Parts: sequence; structure tokens; C-alpha cells
Amino acid sequence: MMIVMKPGATNEDIESVVERIESCGARAHLSSGEEVTVIGAIGDREHVQRLGLEGHAGVQQVVPILRPYKLSSNQFRSGERTVIEIDGRRIGGEHFSMIAGPCTVESREQVLSTADTVAAAGASMFRGGAYKPRSSPYSFQGLGQEGLHLLAEAKERTGLPIVTELMDARDVEPILEVADVIQVGARNMQNYPLLAEIGRTGRPVLIKRGLSSTLEELLMAAEYVLKEGNPNVMLCERGIRTFETAYRFTLDIMAIPMLKELSHLPVIVDPSHAPGRRDMVLPLSLAAAAAGADGIIVEVHPDPEQAICDGPQQIYADDFASYLEQVERAAAVAGKVLSAAA
Amino acid sequence: MMIVMKPGATNEDIESVVERIESCGARAHLSSGEEVTVIGAIGDREHVQRLGLEGHAGVQQVVPILRPYKLSSNQFRSGERTVIEIDGRRIGGEHFSMIAGPCTVESREQVLSTADTVAAAGASMFRGGAYKPRSSPYSFQGLGQEGLHLLAEAKERTGLPIVTELMDARDVEPILEVADVIQVGARNMQNYPLLAEIGRTGRPVLIKRGLSSTLEELLMAAEYVLKEGNPNVMLCERGIRTFETAYRFTLDIMAIPMLKELSHLPVIVDPSHAPGRRDMVLPLSLAAAAAGADGIIVEVHPDPEQAICDGPQQIYADDFASYLEQVERAAAVAGKVLSAAA
Amino acid sequence: MMIVMKPGATNEDIESVVERIESCGARAHLSSGEEVTVIGAIGDREHVQRLGLEGHAGVQQVVPILRPYKLSSNQFRSGERTVIEIDGRRIGGEHFSMIAGPCTVESREQVLSTADTVAAAGASMFRGGAYKPRSSPYSFQGLGQEGLHLLAEAKERTGLPIVTELMDARDVEPILEVADVIQVGARNMQNYPLLAEIGRTGRPVLIKRGLSSTLEELLMAAEYVLKEGNPNVMLCERGIRTFETAYRFTLDIMAIPMLKELSHLPVIVDPSHAPGRRDMVLPLSLAAAAAGADGIIVEVHPDPEQAICDGPQQIYADDFASYLEQVERAAAVAGKVLSAAA
Amino acid sequence: MMIVMKPGATNEDIESVVERIESCGARAHLSSGEEVTVIGAIGDREHVQRLGLEGHAGVQQVVPILRPYKLSSNQFRSGERTVIEIDGRRIGGEHFSMIAGPCTVESREQVLSTADTVAAAGASMFRGGAYKPRSSPYSFQGLGQEGLHLLAEAKERTGLPIVTELMDARDVEPILEVADVIQVGARNMQNYPLLAEIGRTGRPVLIKRGLSSTLEELLMAAEYVLKEGNPNVMLCERGIRTFETAYRFTLDIMAIPMLKELSHLPVIVDPSHAPGRRDMVLPLSLAAAAAGADGIIVEVHPDPEQAICDGPQQIYADDFASYLEQVERAAAVAGKVLSAAA
Repeated sequence: MMIVMKPGATNEDIESVVERIESCGARAHLSSGEEVTVIGAIGDREHVQRLGLEGHAGVQQVVPILRPYKLSSNQFRSGERTVIEIDGRRIGGEHFSMIAGPCTVESREQVLSTADTVAAAGASMFRGGAYKPRSSPYSFQGLGQEGLHLLAEAKERTGLPIVTELMDARDVEPILEVADVIQVGARNMQNYPLLAEIGRTGRPVLIKRGLSSTLEELLMAAEYVLKEGNPNVMLCERGIRTFETAYRFTLDIMAIPMLKELSHLPVIVDPSHAPGRRDMVLPLSLAAAAAGADGIIVEVHPDPEQAICDGPQQIYADDFASYLEQVERAAAVAGKVLSAAA
Repeated sequence: MMIVMKPGATNEDIESVVERIESCGARAHLSSGEEVTVIGAIGDREHVQRLGLEGHAGVQQVVPILRPYKLSSNQFRSGERTVIEIDGRRIGGEHFSMIAGPCTVESREQVLSTADTVAAAGASMFRGGAYKPRSSPYSFQGLGQEGLHLLAEAKERTGLPIVTELMDARDVEPILEVADVIQVGARNMQNYPLLAEIGRTGRPVLIKRGLSSTLEELLMAAEYVLKEGNPNVMLCERGIRTFETAYRFTLDIMAIPMLKELSHLPVIVDPSHAPGRRDMVLPLSLAAAAAGADGIIVEVHPDPEQAICDGPQQIYADDFASYLEQVERAAAVAGKVLSAAA
Repeated sequence: MMIVMKPGATNEDIESVVERIESCGARAHLSSGEEVTVIGAIGDREHVQRLGLEGHAGVQQVVPILRPYKLSSNQFRSGERTVIEIDGRRIGGEHFSMIAGPCTVESREQVLSTADTVAAAGASMFRGGAYKPRSSPYSFQGLGQEGLHLLAEAKERTGLPIVTELMDARDVEPILEVADVIQVGARNMQNYPLLAEIGRTGRPVLIKRGLSSTLEELLMAAEYVLKEGNPNVMLCERGIRTFETAYRFTLDIMAIPMLKELSHLPVIVDPSHAPGRRDMVLPLSLAAAAAGADGIIVEVHPDPEQAICDGPQQIYADDFASYLEQVERAAAVAGKVLSAAA
Repeated sequence: MMIVMKPGATNEDIESVVERIESCGARAHLSSGEEVTVIGAIGDREHVQRLGLEGHAGVQQVVPILRPYKLSSNQFRSGERTVIEIDGRRIGGEHFSMIAGPCTVESREQVLSTADTVAAAGASMFRGGAYKPRSSPYSFQGLGQEGLHLLAEAKERTGLPIVTELMDARDVEPILEVADVIQVGARNMQNYPLLAEIGRTGRPVLIKRGLSSTLEELLMAAEYVLKEGNPNVMLCERGIRTFETAYRFTLDIMAIPMLKELSHLPVIVDPSHAPGRRDMVLPLSLAAAAAGADGIIVEVHPDPEQAICDGPQQIYADDFASYLEQVERAAAVAGKVLSAAA
């Protein structure tokens, strides 16, 4: 923590800051320039972060130096990257994962036919929502447990591991019976009790970045899971809120290289929700793969015109094989190979 | 719902859109201009909203016409405003509420002394957090049930109704024993199971706007509570995420008149979190009151330098009486009078 | 400038940074904590700002310490505030200025009748655009020189000083014949040749904040004018770009107290452009005045339905006197009195 | 233009809107649903856009239907894409352009050595700034005319066409002597007199998107040039302002497919300014090429540590050949081939 004093700060102001720093067991370190004095607070991270000197007399600015996350930091693993193994598929490192399936579990026919299609084309895992967070209480909220049973059937049939969302800590048990990867939605990224609960399960988790969450906040969400002893965390960029109204969200492609610089955790990209329209899913997927993403989670539907939810952004199951082939070529540019069962 | 066709859309494209509209029981209504054709889809709101025509051949744009919220809409109450009564205090209409207290419940001494001070000065309600959502899992997470007991003691002593946050649906019972108003934090604004649970309790609720939530999304969050039969909802503007780095969040003052135009629910402003520093709390409070806010929820601490959390933004308990007097003058400009027990 | 080294930085990395700092004539100052080393670069501001160490081996982050503006900084005038005098009206300090008039100069009748109305009600200055920046090349671009003549006539008749926009440095001469205050539009806030040209004229200038400009960038724009020896600069908040689509721009009310903390220059607020609709102009004006703004620049039209441009946001000339009276009451809460000719 | 009436709008309100529409020569077209009435205004685009009904009694919302740009619209060329030819290099269509060179022209040695390197590696054009827009008036403002002479020398030597920035319409003549492509910087994207001036020159122009400009506004800027009869416009995405502080700007990768959907003009990406650091330039370049960009404009320096400006984001000239080779592979995924002299 560096405390930058105002140009007009008095010696008294400076001494008072030093005293406050030392009172919590840290050391103070002064640098006096011609115009301003900067005071470093050196000591235990938690204590230093609680100093609360922003309003103190003579203080212009408080600049945090240490990053607030530890276990999710690249430094924690000395540069070694996390590779998660799920039923023989590897996520992270030189592996590229293709997670595909419908937005929502709607019917047995829809789930199984989609699962067959994406499995045949070579997808790494199968996704589908049984519990759906909807901005309107009047919208379809998912099939719930019935949806989970259908996902279990799809897994039994295709062998594909299942990725599905948990919205409410009270539903954790039925989810654990089916999910190989628990998905945390963007709107729950800072639902801390939920994150801690998932941490305690030990099950792999894919955390979607909140609509206006900084990368630091995403890593802090991961930290809530890691702290409970669950190391199997994937980060997911899915688009952020900006002023641009031409799309629903703005996909932040820079999050890929930056998260890889900050953290050892795998980075997955969702190319479906940001545009909200299928004709942009391919170029965004190619961009994500070329930029070095560890995988993509994409929405696929056998008949999107009849989808209950988010039809316009789901790609046609019939187009999936060709889509995957193109994405593999882009992943190759970044030195990655499609992850499949060993 | 209006569907705007591309200039080059064929008759076939148009007929196909019309067919899709009619297939879900709605009526299609064509307007053909010189350059484009616009098709209105008229019928049941829910069906129409599920048409999913964004990706359809020949479609340029889909424009929603009906607002997705109903019970929170101004139109629902034909322009009459909701006034909530809590232990004789009124919130909404011509009443101005001052909700004051510490960010976090830290100790008996701190809670009771602050409660005494704000009660003596004329505050309408007392606030304090027992469960705290913290971006770091390593930070103090609140005193929990012990904190609730202290709030109960403060209420018994001063008679002030209590506003406190619920973060986890599993904690609803102990919260109901103490809270006169349940607070939903910004990070939980789209925690739909939590909102529905609070809706079922019937207890008054103050919903903070998410960091990047639109006003429409805030009203949809309110809708989740109202739909369960709980009409006692207050909306709270507390600052949004923008590109500006001079403050933590940007207080959206325009939300006050706009929410009042869209909805009949009371609008409260939190002037503490956006600046994160106490010297800006007074000007923001004056602005909010003059713009017509129905109340303010402000952080007050007897000794902010020693606060466990958010010390720099809490105003001194010693300054509270003078602060409240100035805010009352600004509220008077907007035609409002401080709400007190009858 | 503080250079924060990565936890794994080697001694070689640190020495290389120190060397680079010293090579440009600055001094390096090391603070070594348990986890990281921070190096202060102390010396001439311009040299230090040019170090470019962001990409250097072992460097995690470069933190600027000194603010890049000087003449516009509060520190430059040791806390004394700038008060600008124009034809006997004072702007800044305890004076509140009401600058009113039509968006665009449309006709002699429109300009003179509006000028008469606002002068009679007690406005401090008259505004009107002769050169209009329009996002479409097909829109009306203003009456140009003819518009300037009409503004001159309005001034002669009412005695009100004129505020009008300069868009192109090549038009500076005709503007100087009429404008008592030159307005720089939001889209030109970083048009540096234009700012420098205005700086050389010495004429008072009102600089509107860019749609996504930080307060620091606004102060840097002011710096371009001040550096040329023109001290008569007013800053104007007019709304910024955010994700919210309920309004055109989001009025940043916090800019008022923050600019006053950072700078000695007067702060004016434009309540018309952000909402784009007249029913929100009054609450925003009250908020701005209560928050301590030094004035308001508002759009007024005798018949907004017939306005060529931005009709919906212009208030009715017939309502202006009552509007001004209410704003004066809000300004009084902040300790300000309406500025009028001595 | 569709005018959505409030649910409670009276017949009188509706008739008054219809009257206003017809008074400007347009036709009104009513659609009455169960809850609301929508009125289409059909007629001349400019007249309709000037209706100004946003504040009218009973009006809830005004929804523009026609896009405000014409010449830059995809519809204007019936889907055919613009391909610009410059000294035998083609920009657009299946051609991929690599525009490379230093941020700023600093010295003869620096310019010529960089030009030699990028020419040898196969770059399509050479870039370098002689006039530099700097946020601080105290920063280096470019070598001006002397810089232009050095660019001319680089061109003579390597044959590479020159891309350089024009900031002030008064400098257009010397720029025309050297520039094969005139660059308009992000801060000047809405400097309309400058755009019109460039339009009149007929010289190819590369327009950078403003920091918070929507894609529609970028296309309107292009429209200012096109309207003057200059069809040689390239659009450039270079990063936008968002809440994220981990980078300087957020590169909007979605702008590539969306601009191609909306317009026939070539789309270039600047991967240097958004991250502000060279280690992210390669992944962003690969992403842009894979997403279908028509080219990249990248900063290259022989010795970035000694650069006057933006050193940390410039890639090493020594690394350029390998960089270009990788980008070509990503462009191939999108079906593009590097553009070179015929």
C-alpha cells in the first residue's frame, strides 16, 4: 500500500499517517520528492488493506500494491498452469475444450438429439441449463430436477461430461448428482455463499464473469472457491456492459491474454450471449481461439426457431461439425489441440 | 414487439415472419414504407416476447414495445404512489426518510452509541450490517447472528426500525426476527431465488441497484418480490460502474426522476458507496434530496478511523445532526418533509 | 511515479529499472517489502512521465503519483477559487450563474423573444448556437455568420453577455466579434489546436466535458487554454456515456464536488442534453444547484415543438421565470446567490 | 420512425401526434394493440427525423427505424464490398493489409530503419505520426513538417505507401504532399469540419473510432467524408472506454463482424493502443485477423525503451517478421491473404 500525501501536507499529517500504519503492526517507509511525499505501508496484507487512510488529513490518494487474490494468482503456482481433468478430458495447458449444447433443457428429444450431434462432431463436454436465471419472473425458469434427469441420460448415452448451472445453494445436492462441472452464472458471480458452498463440494466449476465485473473481481470470486480447498476452477469471459447498443454485451477479448498473465486458471469464452445472434458466433469463436482461449462454451439447438429461450443466438445443430472444424483451425494458430477423451 | 425488416427483405421473408407471429397466437400488423417494412406483433405479452425473430431471414431489428414489468410499473397503480408504513414512519409520497447507521455492526458500544446519536437527531430508521458481502474471502464477513442481537437491542432502546441485509436465503429466519426492512445488496440484485424468498415473507424490502443494472432490470428485480404478493418494495440508487476512475462508482442522479416516471415505488439514495469518501457525502445527499428522492440511507460511525470496513466513507456521528438539518432543507426544495414516528 | 516490481523480479531487473530512471536525470528510491519491491522515480515531472517502464522486465505496474495538470490544479492557486467577471456578472465563488437560451439560433423572432424572456426573468447570460456540430452531415448545421449577427442584436437589446460555440479554428474571428464566452463542445474537448487557439484569444471559455472523458482529461483540456495565458476557463459537466439506455447520457453529479476538490475553476452544469427531455430538466437543475454548481446552462425555446433541433429537451420560455425561481432556492441551500449585472 | 404511445394516451394525444407527423409531409400509420398504440411515421428520412415527438403528450418512446447513414451502409452498395487500391496494394475484400511503423516520427535514423525492417518483412504500408494529439500540452507534440519530410524519404526508399495523421484542417496541404492515407485520430472522430475537409481532398482516409463512439456514430463520421465525394474510407477499431481498469481501453472485437454487416467499408484494427503493452499485441492481432479484419495497423520501433511516446506498446522491429508470419496464419483462417504491391 502506498499513501500519496497532498503537496500541502504538513509534517503533522505525515507523522499521523505513519503512526496509524505502525499501530496496526506494519512498517512505514517514506519517500520525499520535491512536490510530494509518498509513504509505503509494508506488512501483513490483510492488516495493511484495512488501514482506511483515504479520508485522512493530508492524504491525496491510497494506491494498493499487492493484488488482493492469492490462490488464483499466477505467482501462487510459480507460472505453472492449472490443467483440470474431467473423465479423461483435459482443460487448460495446450488443450482446447469445446463445450456445446442447448441454452435450456426443453425436452428429451431436444437434449438427446443435440447431445448425439455434438458428441459425433467431437465436442469435449455437453452443456444445458435445468435451472435458468431469467430477468423476468414471468419467463420460463427451467425444468429443474426433470431437466437434470435428461442431462444424466444424455451423459449415459454419449459419455460426454455435463456442465450445468447452479443458482441456489439449496439445490446443490441434485446438481452434484449430474454435474461434472458446475456453472456459476454471470449474475451470481458475487453470490459469495454460493461460491463457498461450491468450494466445499470440490466439484469442478466454471465461473462466468459478471456483466460489469473487473478481472480482479472475477479472480476474487475464484478465490472464494479455491479457499475452500477446491482447485478446479475455470474462468469464463462472456461479454461486459458498455455504452455500445449494437450488441447485447461487448465481448472482452483482451480478458483472455490478461487473465492468463494474472492467473494460472483456464480461460473459457462464451461467444453466444454477447452478440445474441448466431451469425456472429463463428467470428467471435475464431477470435477467442486465436487469442489463446482454453476453450469455448457455445449454444447449439436442433431447431432454434422453436427454442424456449435465446433461440436467435443458438447455432444450428446441423452446422456444428463444420463450426467445430473451423474453430480447431483457429486454436491451432495459438498452438492448441482439441481435448477429447483419452 | 415491432419487427423491422431489412430494406432488401423479400416477400417470402415477410410472409415467414408473419407466419411465425401467428403461429404463437398473436396478430401481425404490416406497415410498408418506401424503404422498409415494419411488422407489429400484437398479442399476449409473454408469447410475443418469446418469438425470437432476431436471427430470422430478412429481419434487421426487433424492437420491444411493451415494458416487461407490470406490478412495479406506474401504470399498474394509475399514477398513485406507493407509501410504505413502518412503525408509524411513512416512506414515499411527500415523506422524506433518513436511514442512518454504521456500515457494519462491530460492537455493542459502537451500535448503541450510533443508534442513540441518530435517533436524537431525528433519523427515521437505523441501518447496520450483520452479514456483509465482501469481495475478498479473507475480509471480515460480519458478526452474523450476534450482530442481529445487537441491532435488536438498538431498536428496543431507540424505537428506530431496523434495516439490515440478507445475503443468503438460508438465513431468512433470524433476519426476520430483527429486520423491519430487509436490504438486498447490489451484488444480489439479480439473485432471483433470494428475491422470491423475500417476496414470500411479506416484509418491506430495500433493493439496491446492481453495479451495472439498467433501471429496467432494477424494476424487474422488484417484480420478483411484488409477484409473490409483497407490495412493500423500495428501490435504491447507489452508484453505477462507468469509465471514470476518480470515484468508486458514479451516482446516477437521473435515476431518481426516471424511476418516479416509470414506477410508483419509493426511491432511496445511498450517497456513501459511490464516492467512498465522506467529504462528498453531503453534496451528494443535497443533490439527491433536491432531485426528489424519497429518502437517503447513509453510513455513520462514532469513530470511522477505527471502523473495520469502509471507514473513509462513514460520516462522523458528531456531525450527523448538522448533516441532517442541511439535507432537510434540500428536501424542502423538492416539497418533502422528514418522516418521523406519528 | 512508483514502479511496482513483480514478486519474482530479479536483482538484475531492479537494477535495470534504477539505471533507466537515473539515465533521465531522476532519482530512484527503493522500498523493499516482504513480497514486492517498489521503486520511486523522483525528479522532473516531464522526464519522469516519459520513462515508459510499463513493458520492462520484472515490472508489474507503473503508478503515476503527480497529477498531470498544473495550472488548473487547486494547488496552483493555494485553494483560492477563480472568479471570472463578464460585463459585471461574476462566475464562481458564491455566485450562481444562469445561462439560458435556445439550442440553435433559428430566426430573429425566436432569438429576440427568448432573449427578452430570459433577461426579464433574471438570467445571467444568453446562449445560442450559430455553428452546430451534428452527428449527421444531412442535418441542419446552423445559421453561421447570420446567426452570430442575431446574437449580437440580442445582446445589444438585453445587455446579456453571449455564450456561443466555436467548432473550427478558422471561424475564430467572427466568433470573437460576438462571443463574451466561447463554448467548446463535448466532441471538441480534445481538439487541441482549437483549445490552444482559444487560449491565445484570452476570451473566457466554457469547456464541455467529452462524452467519455475523465475529469483528469477535462482538466488537461483546460490546461491547453491556461497554458496560453488565458485564465478565464469554466468547466462544464453535461452527461457521460454509460450502459444505461433510459437516457441519452448519464449526468455525473459527482463531478461537481470532485472538480471543486481538484481545481479552482468554476463548474457549470448542462441539465438539458443528458435527459434529452424537458420534464427531467428541473430535477437535474435542482440537484446540480444543491450540489454546489457555480451555474447552469439550460436550453429555452418559445415554441420547442417547432424547434429545428433538440426540441424535446428545451424548456418553454413561458416556464422559465418559475424554473429560475426554484433553481435559486436550491442554490441557496449550497450558499449561492444568483449572479446579475452589478 | 415508430412512436409508441403510453398505455393511458387519449385519443386526443394520438390525433395530435398524427397531425404533427402529417404537418411535415409524412404519412402516419396506426397499429392499436390491446395495451398500446404504435404510430409509424413514414416519409422523407430527414423530415421524419426532425419530428421531435419525444416530449409530446401521451408519447412513451420514439423508436428510429431507418439507419441515419446512407452512403456507408451495406445497402448502398447492395452487398458489394469496397476495395481501395493504393499504389497497387488492395485494402478490403479478400486482402489483408499490414500497416506498420513507429507511433511517432522521432529521427531520420529511427524512421528509415523501421521502414526498411517492415518493408523487408512484407508490410503493406508504413505508418508514423508527425502531428501528435497529446492529452498534455507539456508533452512532445510531434516533429510536424520535418517529420513529414522523413516519411517522404521512407516512402521513396521502400516504396511503401504512407499513413499519417491530420489533426488540424489548416495543415491539410503539407499532409497531402506525403500521405497516401490520411489518418483521423479517435479524438477527432467527431471533428466534422476536419472530416468534410478530408472528404473534399479525395485522398484515402482511415478513421479511428472515438473512445466512446457507437458504431453508428463511426459510420456517421464516414458519411461526412463520403458525402463530399470521397469513397476511400477505412474504419478503424482501436479500443473503447469501459469500467475495466486492467487495460487502457477495451478492444471491441465484435466491431469487426458488426461493421461488416452494417457497411461495405474495410475494417482495420489497431491492437497497440488498447493494451498499451507489447505482450498483448500478438494475441489481439491474431484475434482480429481470425475474426475477419481487413487489416491491422501496428506500432513498431527499433528501440522502444528509447521511444519518446508510447514505448511500452511498440513491438520490437526485430520481432516484426515473426509477428507478421503468425498474423498471416490467423488471417488465412478467415480466408484472407496478405496484400502486397502488384
